[in-house]
Amino acid sequence: MTDAKDFKLVIIGGGEDKKADKKILKEVVKLAGGKEARIGIVTTATKLPEEVGQEYEKLFKDMGVSEVNTINIGGRKTSDIHGTIDKIMDYSCLFFSGGDQLRISSIIGGTDFHNLIHDYRREGRIIAGTSAGASMMSQIMIVEGDDEEAPARCTIKLAPGMGLIDGVVIDQHFNQRGRIGRLFAAVAQNPSILGIGIDEDTAIVVEGNEKFSVIGNGVVTVVDGRHIEYTNITEQYPDDPLALTNVTVHILPERYGYNLIDKTAIIISEKH
Amino acid sequence: MTDAKDFKLVIIGGGEDKKADKKILKEVVKLAGGKEARIGIVTTATKLPEEVGQEYEKLFKDMGVSEVNTINIGGRKTSDIHGTIDKIMDYSCLFFSGGDQLRISSIIGGTDFHNLIHDYRREGRIIAGTSAGASMMSQIMIVEGDDEEAPARCTIKLAPGMGLIDGVVIDQHFNQRGRIGRLFAAVAQNPSILGIGIDEDTAIVVEGNEKFSVIGNGVVTVVDGRHIEYTNITEQYPDDPLALTNVTVHILPERYGYNLIDKTAIIISEKH
Repeated sequence: MTDAKDFKLVIIGGGEDKKADKKILKEVVKLAGGKEARIGIVTTATKLPEEVGQEYEKLFKDMGVSEVNTINIGGRKTSDIHGTIDKIMDYSCLFFSGGDQLRISSIIGGTDFHNLIHDYRREGRIIAGTSAGASMMSQIMIVEGDDEEAPARCTIKLAPGMGLIDGVVIDQHFNQRGRIGRLFAAVAQNPSILGIGIDEDTAIVVEGNEKFSVIGNGVVTVVDGRHIEYTNITEQYPDDPLALTNVTVHILPERYGYNLIDKTAIIISEKH
Repeated sequence: MTDAKDFKLVIIGGGEDKKADKKILKEVVKLAGGKEARIGIVTTATKLPEEVGQEYEKLFKDMGVSEVNTINIGGRKTSDIHGTIDKIMDYSCLFFSGGDQLRISSIIGGTDFHNLIHDYRREGRIIAGTSAGASMMSQIMIVEGDDEEAPARCTIKLAPGMGLIDGVVIDQHFNQRGRIGRLFAAVAQNPSILGIGIDEDTAIVVEGNEKFSVIGNGVVTVVDGRHIEYTNITEQYPDDPLALTNVTVHILPERYGYNLIDKTAIIISEKH
């Protein structure tokens, strides 16, 4: 269970702008300490760790960050080697790249490095992740599911995530890949779990288990299933389409946010 | 304004099965009188009226329908010619093919044929339509909008439809093309309008302005905006992403339906 009150996560829906405004990456840098930031790029999710690591190293360095390194943990043994972990003990931010979220959970889950991530989080250091690095944040994560399909029980496969935020399931590349069906299917399985669909070049900045605010160019879709009246999720043959009535949905762009305790949308700031 | 109480519409989200079960086309035939059905295929939406007309003629004939003809109205003049209309006076069902819904409204809108469609509807004859032929059914229809994009004011263009059903806006190929963003944008403009997104090989059978039931292999997504709390639709620059909070969504597969008066989801029948 997560317990720290003041932790900060930056959860990015993939495809964050790396050329123009770099609004989201700038926010990561700002939260991590600005020029004093010390960012560790965790490339476990990708099969191209060197390319991806180098890309983010260059990006963050060009933004004035003094210390950026790639932490290439590609197998469970590396993840447990104390030397590797000692070297990365003093980052102000861990940034998880995209790739496959199941690589993150299966390689890092339960290792010393997993404990370190939780220590970091408790200490208020920034944990950021994009795409697969976003999905892995929650207790339970979507690892597979059909895009652009009618919601059905079988369109979704869930797995235990890294447990950095409670009570939510996160999906990314959300509107771009037509994923609302699979998020509905996830929420239908247990409506106490809040579904959060994050668009490309869009992020949520989570402040403890209390609230998040939205930044970037797309929207965040929140699926609140607490008031569901009917669902057929337990009745049907697996390929049957899902029934789900009375789901509450919020579409939140920048300047909007969400109160995770009251489960209500909030306006963070007026347009300047 | 529509007024007839007992009209029946079959509104199909495109891509209806034409090879295996033909569940939806069978329902059209059944409602139109079974073997006694007299079906007129209206090919106005498509630029390939002959091919499309022939395809549906063969399909319906193979299903035992005795009288099927293509009504090829390709311009406003044809639409007004009494001879053409007289010939089609005794169909039990008009079936509108896919194509471009703006062709239907711009070619048929306001002509004698448009009046005839309304007469048919009042008389309880079946009006069916697929894809563009689905979109055109409502008072206001979606003619253009980005698929798989975050909802934004500018992602949607609306136009006056054929007015066969009140108070709704219909979108088709719904989950298959990731269109929930544009349906949210349509509903945000006037939350009194109910958004209905119909998947491929899925249809709603509308009974008056009272209710509809779902048939087919996908789902129907109902977007009810009456309880929206915040939206930025009037505030933003056109390309800004949309904010929309507290939207109610229902996901309805076969055996489910919707009460258009109470605005509640209903179970039509239990699984047999």
